[in-house]
Amino acid sequence: MTPAAGAPAKFHDISLRVSYGDTDKAGVVYYANYLRYFERGRTELLRSLGVSYRDLEIEHGIVMPVVEASCRYLAPCRYDDLVVVRSWISALEAASLTVRNEVFIRENDDLSKVAEGFTRHAVLNSLWRPTRIPEDVRRRLSGEGG
Amino acid sequence: MTPAAGAPAKFHDISLRVSYGDTDKAGVVYYANYLRYFERGRTELLRSLGVSYRDLEIEHGIVMPVVEASCRYLAPCRYDDLVVVRSWISALEAASLTVRNEVFIRENDDLSKVAEGFTRHAVLNSLWRPTRIPEDVRRRLSGEGG
Amino acid sequence: MTPAAGAPAKFHDISLRVSYGDTDKAGVVYYANYLRYFERGRTELLRSLGVSYRDLEIEHGIVMPVVEASCRYLAPCRYDDLVVVRSWISALEAASLTVRNEVFIRENDDLSKVAEGFTRHAVLNSLWRPTRIPEDVRRRLSGEGG
Amino acid sequence: MTPAAGAPAKFHDISLRVSYGDTDKAGVVYYANYLRYFERGRTELLRSLGVSYRDLEIEHGIVMPVVEASCRYLAPCRYDDLVVVRSWISALEAASLTVRNEVFIRENDDLSKVAEGFTRHAVLNSLWRPTRIPEDVRRRLSGEGG
Repeated sequence: MTPAAGAPAKFHDISLRVSYGDTDKAGVVYYANYLRYFERGRTELLRSLGVSYRDLEIEHGIVMPVVEASCRYLAPCRYDDLVVVRSWISALEAASLTVRNEVFIRENDDLSKVAEGFTRHAVLNSLWRPTRIPEDVRRRLSGEGG
Repeated sequence: MTPAAGAPAKFHDISLRVSYGDTDKAGVVYYANYLRYFERGRTELLRSLGVSYRDLEIEHGIVMPVVEASCRYLAPCRYDDLVVVRSWISALEAASLTVRNEVFIRENDDLSKVAEGFTRHAVLNSLWRPTRIPEDVRRRLSGEGG
Repeated sequence: MTPAAGAPAKFHDISLRVSYGDTDKAGVVYYANYLRYFERGRTELLRSLGVSYRDLEIEHGIVMPVVEASCRYLAPCRYDDLVVVRSWISALEAASLTVRNEVFIRENDDLSKVAEGFTRHAVLNSLWRPTRIPEDVRRRLSGEGG
Repeated sequence: MTPAAGAPAKFHDISLRVSYGDTDKAGVVYYANYLRYFERGRTELLRSLGVSYRDLEIEHGIVMPVVEASCRYLAPCRYDDLVVVRSWISALEAASLTVRNEVFIRENDDLSKVAEGFTRHAVLNSLWRPTRIPEDVRRRLSGEGG
């Protein structure tokens, strides 16, 4: 699969099935649930870069709450659709982070984009004060391994 | 309003509107969301008895996780229906509590029952060990005020 | 209550309690759930203008799916907080509509803003094709009653 | 993996990660979300038996709403836990169906049970009237292939 225009090399894809509980009476995925899909995508993006968000919280005492979220809905997703959530880090600053997402319906080998958006995260310590991303975490997030 | 058969005198009713996000593609409230309605009902039941569940957690260090939940679905609820959630304490033991719920659609002054069920709760201290309900809380829950 | 700076006269407020199910392990309202709060706010905004969204769908065959949603998170909301969701129509075009939202925590008579955002909606007929907002609906939405 | 005591040979397992949005302020999976896990489990159970629930609705005009749901919570599940949802058909009658579920946390090769329950479903036609399960579907559900 080649990345969509605008998606950098370092994206990560997860697949998921649209469940009944994700849909609403219009027969399509309820708009708030795309943010849940985004979350599942970015957790696995971090894991693919060697960063467990759970361990970040437990071991480093770091939380990364969402300070802004945005989504554009291009086409509906329906029950039982096989969906691909693509995620990549589009900005990595001293004490913040932006993850971009694209959502596709997969049919056979074709991906058709149905939504795109981003979440911007503050990086906070256990007192919910802004803090710098630890150096080894930053190295992994920027794709320099570690 | 007279209580439904089987409902004791000490019930508490809340009203809520079915939102779009509560429904699923069948056009009715998704079955898991009734447990969310139950939660909203029992929080307000406790408050009506003079017990804030938030304060229980903060001041008494007590949590009351659900150890069993059950619901029977009698008829569908639809988007924008005005729903009444009725809640009462049906059992109050040393370190556990059962709350029963009934859910009605309200049309004009008529209530038609659409679901009923219960949640059973353990009473745990801050170490998640079973603990007795504090005496002043028990008095309130049993309707003896305080 | 005077409107916040930037909020026009024609806003509508609803109150709701943060439920346990709205929170996440950080102890605050999960970010996707603000979009559910927005939905509840805009449904009641429409109702306050004399427009039932349910009837729009049933009687006019019109759906207004979200084509873009955005939220900025300014401060956390916690379990049992009393929340005010403020909503107003900020743009009304031929076949689209934008609703802005602000979310406040209410303590006594004080409102402190915790989030703000918007949803943009397409106006579609029963075939999901763009369609003009019916004239009597438009009149109501623009606050000219009806 | 050998089936848990009481689980018949014909069970089906799915794996999923607990997401942030599944948890609540107690740091564990919110109780209503187990019913969402049950749904994902039983959809894949049906698929493993050669029955697509989506096609049942579309091609046969059949819906299978939940008429009763029950869950016992034995131990908490936490964020990022790897969870196994086990599902099997425990009763198959003329116009109804019962699916049992068990939820496990998987650590290495160990499964520890955290919840168990069931959903009972009516089988309805497109008019929401009870109807017999079509013979070819029944054959698949009873494990006789087709």
